[in-house]
Amino acid sequence: MALIVQKFGGTSVGTVERIENVAERIKKFRDRGDDIVVVVSAMSGETNRLIEMAYQIDEKPNAREYDVLLSTGEQVTIALLSMALNRRGVPARSYTGTQVHILTDSAHNKARILDINELNMRTDLDQGRVVVVAGFQGVDEKGNITTLGRGGSDTTAVALAAALKADECQIYTDVDGVYTTDPRVVPEARRLEKITFEEMLEMASLGSKVLQIRAVEFAGKYNVPLRVLSSFDEPNFDSDGVNGTLITYEEDKMEQALISGIAFNRDEAKLTILGVPDKPGVAHGILGPVGDANIEIDMIIQNIGADGTTDFTFTVHRNDFVAAKAVLNRVSNELGAREVIGDEKIVKISLVGVGMRSHAGIASKMFKALAEEGININMISTSEIKISVVVDEKYLELGVRTLHSAFGLAEKQS
Amino acid sequence: MALIVQKFGGTSVGTVERIENVAERIKKFRDRGDDIVVVVSAMSGETNRLIEMAYQIDEKPNAREYDVLLSTGEQVTIALLSMALNRRGVPARSYTGTQVHILTDSAHNKARILDINELNMRTDLDQGRVVVVAGFQGVDEKGNITTLGRGGSDTTAVALAAALKADECQIYTDVDGVYTTDPRVVPEARRLEKITFEEMLEMASLGSKVLQIRAVEFAGKYNVPLRVLSSFDEPNFDSDGVNGTLITYEEDKMEQALISGIAFNRDEAKLTILGVPDKPGVAHGILGPVGDANIEIDMIIQNIGADGTTDFTFTVHRNDFVAAKAVLNRVSNELGAREVIGDEKIVKISLVGVGMRSHAGIASKMFKALAEEGININMISTSEIKISVVVDEKYLELGVRTLHSAFGLAEKQS
Repeated sequence: MALIVQKFGGTSVGTVERIENVAERIKKFRDRGDDIVVVVSAMSGETNRLIEMAYQIDEKPNAREYDVLLSTGEQVTIALLSMALNRRGVPARSYTGTQVHILTDSAHNKARILDINELNMRTDLDQGRVVVVAGFQGVDEKGNITTLGRGGSDTTAVALAAALKADECQIYTDVDGVYTTDPRVVPEARRLEKITFEEMLEMASLGSKVLQIRAVEFAGKYNVPLRVLSSFDEPNFDSDGVNGTLITYEEDKMEQALISGIAFNRDEAKLTILGVPDKPGVAHGILGPVGDANIEIDMIIQNIGADGTTDFTFTVHRNDFVAAKAVLNRVSNELGAREVIGDEKIVKISLVGVGMRSHAGIASKMFKALAEEGININMISTSEIKISVVVDEKYLELGVRTLHSAFGLAEKQS
Repeated sequence: MALIVQKFGGTSVGTVERIENVAERIKKFRDRGDDIVVVVSAMSGETNRLIEMAYQIDEKPNAREYDVLLSTGEQVTIALLSMALNRRGVPARSYTGTQVHILTDSAHNKARILDINELNMRTDLDQGRVVVVAGFQGVDEKGNITTLGRGGSDTTAVALAAALKADECQIYTDVDGVYTTDPRVVPEARRLEKITFEEMLEMASLGSKVLQIRAVEFAGKYNVPLRVLSSFDEPNFDSDGVNGTLITYEEDKMEQALISGIAFNRDEAKLTILGVPDKPGVAHGILGPVGDANIEIDMIIQNIGADGTTDFTFTVHRNDFVAAKAVLNRVSNELGAREVIGDEKIVKISLVGVGMRSHAGIASKMFKALAEEGININMISTSEIKISVVVDEKYLELGVRTLHSAFGLAEKQS
């Protein structure tokens, strides 16, 4: 019926028994008539076992050899899964990254996919075989084994789906989809049936870590319909689409919800440099030294004051707070600024939804809801499809619940 | 100075620490100026771990996938060893069977090497790199991963040495060479400095399991000088050749000892079918059904009697004794033979030496020595370079010691 790429992560194939379960699931899809390409990760724990041996030998292991080592993890899984399928009478054939020829650049440990030769896979599919591909790995043009970096198996799956023009790319995880927000914070949080790629990118980068960002970007670029679903639930063939969350392009505005979800990030810290004499180049004068110290900056806000000075505020990862403050103190002297202040106990809450593009009043509704609960907003930052606010750490749960309720996210929207 | 292929088995690379030791050893050869190609097996225990998972899934695992699975074992070792070398400032690069392109036929689990592309290796050697190759594995012409079967790493090493026209192929094991006989039976047993390929074949097939027979055959065919030595001893660079045992072609008759060693085999059992009417085809009539039952036959002796009947005796592995006896009882009736008798408590002792080709009287000296100790000989079988006798099990140690002493094997011969 359909050509489906299915990706199973390390937990889903963590034991021989779970590999057997995955084989059973694939068999059900085959029995329905689907053509299946499977991408698997290393069995959970295996990659760490290999990494440990490497670091026993060298604290900076040779990058090329590190990839040779790590790529064995997925190779074990493809062999075992193919055995399990063949034993069930489902013809299957495994491929390493080299064999399927997932061509990458030569950036060991973080290679990027350049091209995929889908010929072998196509032949196998035509002959009724399930194709089982090792995720996370590829080969450069000289035949060296490369790896895509942690989480790269998602990218492999999306890239194969794009190359094969698959009908759907299914990413199996230990959660059953993307939620309006973290159900541990808001018990009424609802699984989304659909979310756009752009929203998913915002949700993922803001801390809802279901999918690798690179995989989502890749899927968006090649218009691959992505579905996130649980490897522990039974597949639901009666009503297609009820399982998991489908990540799709914004094409069907009628069905599009105003707001898709609420993301949050507990790991932020805020720094402000006050009374900086306002002249061209001041932003670079402040942020340059911070970047030189290898500190990543998230939100940035600058207000020009009336007295010819400016206040400059930005957020960093909480782990970088002390280092960033030290840099700022030095910069502050050099620039003749008044003072450096900081706050480690802040969080970021973000409202995400493509609907806000065409709807006015979302921001004011958000600020009003927070104000009614007495939640003071420290910083505001907006993009086309999200509004982020920084608030005191203690307001995180209250803030997320208030917004979840104010925008009616617990109810199915249409 | 020389181009040397070194092979390290599973025990020699069984832990990260031992891999570091192997790296140290290789560095010493590099420091001396040798070009080194290393072949390694999977870390000991690893192959069994993989096999166990496969058999949990299927008691007859898919042969192609079994090779994909098992080949990861050596891949882990090549990566770790290359890391250990690079960390020591010895540039090294690893190759899987696929990467070095060890072309084999497609007989999964027991593939045979057809060709080796030495181009990549040669380039690396020219650039001062140590080349680290995964043993035991290859690739067929369609790109499928194959394995050569257990012990195939020895064969890989010899094949690489042949392709590269190496000066020597060194097989590192947990023994320091080939002995005149098993030192556990004869404490005075002496390490041989040299042994011919033919003798080594006889010694190996007769139970002195130091090297894989296929590797020895391969080395003989391509005239590759093979050396067996211990991975636990320090390399001796002062007087070349003092380490281990060199297996060479019979070229230097002056130095050749009359007898090289005494092999023995405890796993034999003897069967005799008495009074078979003697007519053409009788050997096939007896051995055909035994072969059909998948029982391998070792020694065969037939005596023609005076009364138009013949006695037919052969030996099998002790595990096959009961099955072989059942077959013989049936055959005996069909052929009108008189009786079937058997003995499970026998052993085979063999005198091996290319010298016996050109020296008469070896056999009679052997029989005399055994007779003087009251050891009765059940069966005799000879080839060009060996004489085997079957005796009662209880005479094994006495027989081996007697012959070891009678032929003066404890003393260095010239």
